Amino acid sequence: MADIVRTIAGGVTAPQGFRAGATSCGIKRDPGTRDLAILLADRPCVAAATFTTSRTPAAPVLLDKEHLDAAGYRAQAVVMNSGNANCSTGEQGLRDARAMAQLVARRFDLDPTLVIVSSTGIIGRPLPMDLITTGIGQIEVTDDGGADFSSAIITTDTRTKIIAVECEIDGQTVRIGGTTKGAGMIYPNMATMLCYITTDAVVEQAWLQSTLSAAVNDSFNMISIDGDMSTNDTALLMASGLAGNTPLVSGAPGAETFAAALNTVTRYLAREIARDGEGATKLMEVRVTGAASDADARKAARSVTLSPLWQCALAGGDPNWGRILAAIGASGAEFAHEHVSIALDGVRLVSNGVAAGFDPAAAAATMAKPELIISIDLGQGDFGATAWGCDLTHGYIDENTLYHR
Amino acid sequence: MADIVRTIAGGVTAPQGFRAGATSCGIKRDPGTRDLAILLADRPCVAAATFTTSRTPAAPVLLDKEHLDAAGYRAQAVVMNSGNANCSTGEQGLRDARAMAQLVARRFDLDPTLVIVSSTGIIGRPLPMDLITTGIGQIEVTDDGGADFSSAIITTDTRTKIIAVECEIDGQTVRIGGTTKGAGMIYPNMATMLCYITTDAVVEQAWLQSTLSAAVNDSFNMISIDGDMSTNDTALLMASGLAGNTPLVSGAPGAETFAAALNTVTRYLAREIARDGEGATKLMEVRVTGAASDADARKAARSVTLSPLWQCALAGGDPNWGRILAAIGASGAEFAHEHVSIALDGVRLVSNGVAAGFDPAAAAATMAKPELIISIDLGQGDFGATAWGCDLTHGYIDENTLYHR
Repeated sequence: MADIVRTIAGGVTAPQGFRAGATSCGIKRDPGTRDLAILLADRPCVAAATFTTSRTPAAPVLLDKEHLDAAGYRAQAVVMNSGNANCSTGEQGLRDARAMAQLVARRFDLDPTLVIVSSTGIIGRPLPMDLITTGIGQIEVTDDGGADFSSAIITTDTRTKIIAVECEIDGQTVRIGGTTKGAGMIYPNMATMLCYITTDAVVEQAWLQSTLSAAVNDSFNMISIDGDMSTNDTALLMASGLAGNTPLVSGAPGAETFAAALNTVTRYLAREIARDGEGATKLMEVRVTGAASDADARKAARSVTLSPLWQCALAGGDPNWGRILAAIGASGAEFAHEHVSIALDGVRLVSNGVAAGFDPAAAAATMAKPELIISIDLGQGDFGATAWGCDLTHGYIDENTLYHR
Repeated sequence: MADIVRTIAGGVTAPQGFRAGATSCGIKRDPGTRDLAILLADRPCVAAATFTTSRTPAAPVLLDKEHLDAAGYRAQAVVMNSGNANCSTGEQGLRDARAMAQLVARRFDLDPTLVIVSSTGIIGRPLPMDLITTGIGQIEVTDDGGADFSSAIITTDTRTKIIAVECEIDGQTVRIGGTTKGAGMIYPNMATMLCYITTDAVVEQAWLQSTLSAAVNDSFNMISIDGDMSTNDTALLMASGLAGNTPLVSGAPGAETFAAALNTVTRYLAREIARDGEGATKLMEVRVTGAASDADARKAARSVTLSPLWQCALAGGDPNWGRILAAIGASGAEFAHEHVSIALDGVRLVSNGVAAGFDPAAAAATMAKPELIISIDLGQGDFGATAWGCDLTHGYIDENTLYHR
């Protein structure tokens, strides 16, 4: 599939039929930092979405589910703010989220249920609706506003995460653009952090939803920065249908090509989130093979990314494989200790559950790389999974000891 | 029960019939640091134990299960080393653990299956059996050797963890003594880190096992320092029977008193482990009430101790309750967001799922304490649970970036 999916310039405004823009309305304390953004489609889109499974979801998550149900899983606009999560804000929070949708609907002459609302930032404070109202009135949406949109959704991220790809589907060029935020409180489960994906493909909604869910499951649901699941996780995919291809449904020609292109987008964004974790200096990709089941492969792979001890060893450049072994041992995955092998970027550390007698210089050189592949063969079956994570440094603690103030 | 369980001086040698001693045999690099210890009972004891549920258990864990089975859950001696976990050491590791038991059996004229072996430290390196053989020959066991034993089992702990209590059971004084190690890789599950408890009570084995399992479940299984479960977790309780009480069985007079005394020991040691977590400056006790089930109460309480974001806020003295809320929201416990209340040492932060309008000065004063009680009412049912954890600081990262070298 790799050669038929091409990376192109641009983000969420790369597909036909999408405009975006952003402003600095004053929610974030740094003057001039963008904190409010709008993504607008030229016409109602087929929409698919996944949300946090937290029992304490933020108000916009509750509103978005209501809107998608009411509009038959169609959407035409997204309005999002950073700097305030609008979570644990009670009835006022729901009223504020609803007001954000109505302001956008009025400005662009849309049905309010076609507007998706997102918030990210501090939990438990009311939204500054005066600032947001003024901001929504000021944002100019343009054909090349994708980068501005991406810059407004980030919080403690050090950089924006943007990708666009294109592929051919029955003679038509189909584009997919995506952007996401990450950095902290990152341990998605059946959902993800904030992620917006656009496409101009013509699609059936049920197929789009299952294709998005599968892509999220193998990308965002396989990353961890700190094991903390967010209250605001949202992934939204909007399809404008302007590419003019034959509608994509299950089994249609081109459905696999589109799924491959979507996987390219979600896996790229997931890796970028892990690489840009709060305080992170290194990206780890954990590839588990030989698992007895898909669930076991996922558990084992994620457990390594979740281990603070291994995250610290990674930061220190210390090939302390005992911590990888302890993490998979505690993961709940079924396997026999004496059949495990572990390698770091090709340097075999463990064979048959014991030290493989590796060259310390080679291991140290591998550990110094900014990006590491940890290969774990459980020697038990035929299932595999890949997870992504980062190291744990003073930077994570500095970022999070006084975030609230 | 509190007034009939009295704390007394001493540790594992406080009950009648136990001697202990330790030496520095050279496994740890710092010269003169104790790293090898023996606990010896005057006669075979009734034994109960819980072990790690890791799929990669260390060699001594495998041997101990074999010994307890072979000896009908009786034990007379413990030999333990720190500085090397004897884990992922293959067949050689099992032979070495067996050799440690045999050396102790020969020296004190015991059946080898009555000897329990423990190791803690780095994973994946063979034990230095020459040093251990010499050391086992040198250790002198004495009636007041409990403190020496405790000093030899610790690794990155900053201090020993020791307790002894006594109570009256049908006119006889019964004593329980205990010690443990903790510090890192602490997230026990159906097991614990290394913990040794002695008693002189006369007991039935099946009752002792169920009483120990219950005590461990409400103490060690409710602590977390870093969410990393160890490969070597072991809790052992040996009963010499020298107190002369009527045998304790289920429903016997005194069984509840003994259980209360044992809970005093295990909860004290569990709290001390959490307080002395690697780099920790603060202890948190998380009390969940109003849960729909015991499992939900436990999940919610542990999830707060497991959140690196809240651990960082705790370190920074920042009453960022949104992170507590996000942690219980992600815990899997069933509850309604709008019924949750959260308080810190009596300062109410959240009522009905929203900010309670607390006094920032009072909250800041509370957050500055070295020991905090976080009370969470889920407003859902009648079940409760308590968990213990610590804050996350630069000290944890410094301890773990270069431990291996």
